[in-house]
Amino acid sequence: MALEEVDTPALLVDLDAFESNMERMAQEASCGGVRLRPHSKTHKCAVIALRQMALGAVGVCCQKVSEAEALVRGGVGDILISNEIVDRRKLDRLAAIAQRATVAICVDNVDAVAALNDSARRFDSRIDVLVEVDVGGGRCGVGPGEPARLLAEWVASTSNLRFCGLQAYQGRAQHIRGWGERQSAVNESAAATLQTIELLSSHGLPCGVVAGGGTGTYAFEMASGIYNELQPGSYIFMDADYHDNLGEPGAATSGFKQSLFVYTQVMSRPSPNYAIVDAGLKALAFDSGMPRVNDMPDVSYSRPSDEHGILDLRTHPDSLRLGAKLRLIPGHCDPTVNLYDWYVVVRRGLVESVWPIVARGALL
Amino acid sequence: MALEEVDTPALLVDLDAFESNMERMAQEASCGGVRLRPHSKTHKCAVIALRQMALGAVGVCCQKVSEAEALVRGGVGDILISNEIVDRRKLDRLAAIAQRATVAICVDNVDAVAALNDSARRFDSRIDVLVEVDVGGGRCGVGPGEPARLLAEWVASTSNLRFCGLQAYQGRAQHIRGWGERQSAVNESAAATLQTIELLSSHGLPCGVVAGGGTGTYAFEMASGIYNELQPGSYIFMDADYHDNLGEPGAATSGFKQSLFVYTQVMSRPSPNYAIVDAGLKALAFDSGMPRVNDMPDVSYSRPSDEHGILDLRTHPDSLRLGAKLRLIPGHCDPTVNLYDWYVVVRRGLVESVWPIVARGALL
Repeated sequence: MALEEVDTPALLVDLDAFESNMERMAQEASCGGVRLRPHSKTHKCAVIALRQMALGAVGVCCQKVSEAEALVRGGVGDILISNEIVDRRKLDRLAAIAQRATVAICVDNVDAVAALNDSARRFDSRIDVLVEVDVGGGRCGVGPGEPARLLAEWVASTSNLRFCGLQAYQGRAQHIRGWGERQSAVNESAAATLQTIELLSSHGLPCGVVAGGGTGTYAFEMASGIYNELQPGSYIFMDADYHDNLGEPGAATSGFKQSLFVYTQVMSRPSPNYAIVDAGLKALAFDSGMPRVNDMPDVSYSRPSDEHGILDLRTHPDSLRLGAKLRLIPGHCDPTVNLYDWYVVVRRGLVESVWPIVARGALL
Repeated sequence: MALEEVDTPALLVDLDAFESNMERMAQEASCGGVRLRPHSKTHKCAVIALRQMALGAVGVCCQKVSEAEALVRGGVGDILISNEIVDRRKLDRLAAIAQRATVAICVDNVDAVAALNDSARRFDSRIDVLVEVDVGGGRCGVGPGEPARLLAEWVASTSNLRFCGLQAYQGRAQHIRGWGERQSAVNESAAATLQTIELLSSHGLPCGVVAGGGTGTYAFEMASGIYNELQPGSYIFMDADYHDNLGEPGAATSGFKQSLFVYTQVMSRPSPNYAIVDAGLKALAFDSGMPRVNDMPDVSYSRPSDEHGILDLRTHPDSLRLGAKLRLIPGHCDPTVNLYDWYVVVRRGLVESVWPIVARGALL
């Protein structure tokens, strides 16, 4: 089937660009001597998780237990919930998964550790635990140093949990535009992380895993010599927001190519100056701004409503007849993917496959 | 099951408020002497569509053929696609539905009319057609007056389509904050609509249906004496954005109650000053701004990420222990609903039912 025959709106993956991104990150991690555990919250797809692992990833990250369930069902055998879970039913489900797969989770609270251990004991499971340290992201996590040590000791004292190391992800740094400012933010995080590792080590709590790094910063965590496991997600697809991050001074681009597109059709052509397309608020996420028009970079998309968007054609008044199709670059890839049930996978203009997004809507 | 036992994030419907909203709109339309055809793009749920029709609605609106398919499967017998469709496979599917249900659609282009008639003829279907007029929304639609007349004549000349009237929805006016400004915008739309009705009538093209009106403006369309079919959607649920519309000077509120909530849990409590909840970009739509915290109106939600949001508790430093649950009011109800597979339907703190969102993700 030719791309032009794909019904719209559809979520496209350009396979050449996708594979190039996958291979590049796998090679960088390998050369950098760190493990790669890509974040599956970006793709929510067992096919992609297994391809990442086939290229050397040690497993994947999830944010939700229901995501982990979907991926384990799809054949993924090693999962880190890079997030806190406090509900007992969710913890029970996680303990059940841990009977079939290698499962780790993050913690930042002593009561949650007790509840997690209870679930693991009742299910006779072993669960690996990373203590999450707030290294500047200002979201979850205990403080570096002493608070992290106290929680790690608590984990180590339980019957069914194993203290494995630190989650030290700096979420805020991912989207700092300037390369130098982004590097500085990670350097600060790395310093707080190192101080914590040394404190724990001096108390007999070695950090086998020191995890963090996203698509915006992974090169800095890798270069730090402190982190040994990277968690980027968006690099496989990219989005308009990540393209706005500046690369190393002198370097042309980040090297990752846009591989994810929303395919849309012109459904109304009420004036020479604008065209209405059939992809709106239910086909794209808008938290990081408007999509870009891949196939006409100087045309802007604006005024989204539930099922419509408007293309400004004042510079191209005779283009885009009714029914024309074109590719949009989402502002933010992760929540855009979460709107679809499958990827339409395309190579050089031909549909090669359809990959189910098995963890779409997996909120629990 | 008590509300407090519902796992999070979950999409809640408060049944008392929901039923009050449903009844109020049904009664207003009945007293105003206009037909009500609520928009199902808000709820995407056959249970709700059938309840609306049981209260007197003549049918529902959909935006997409796949939405119509899902609702017809669920027992809805009268659908208006209040939108343009140009793809031939979609038109064939619509013609197939028209064999089992009463189906109408909007058009704004002569080529699309020809394609629609082709599909209807091949499926031996009859399809009702409204000519969409751009009455100030600046989206789809032909111009009022002569352009509408030309297209209506074209529709009337086809073998399998029936010209039924005008779609004259003013989408932009729905969210104008001031009551008087909103009324003025609709008055302008109504004047353009009336002029078009009269022109068509003088050419032997009576407009049996004159449709428009949303939750923000339906009272004005109803009072105009020109519109005879209203299409509000959000009134059943409401959202933060619609609550910002000002009511009639002197009136207390719009009268519609918030019935839709995202139920969320405190999953991290890293500081006395803020709490992290488990509902982020994949649990709420952010195109119309941040959600509000229903149960603590002076607490603000900010900095959403894929699976997190941050509550500012500086004014309530000792509140919200780890695991606490609370209700958020979405910024925009329609795209928030589209993130979930079911509603958890609650009355006075007890779960009464679960309603499937059968057209969730129905983009095609």
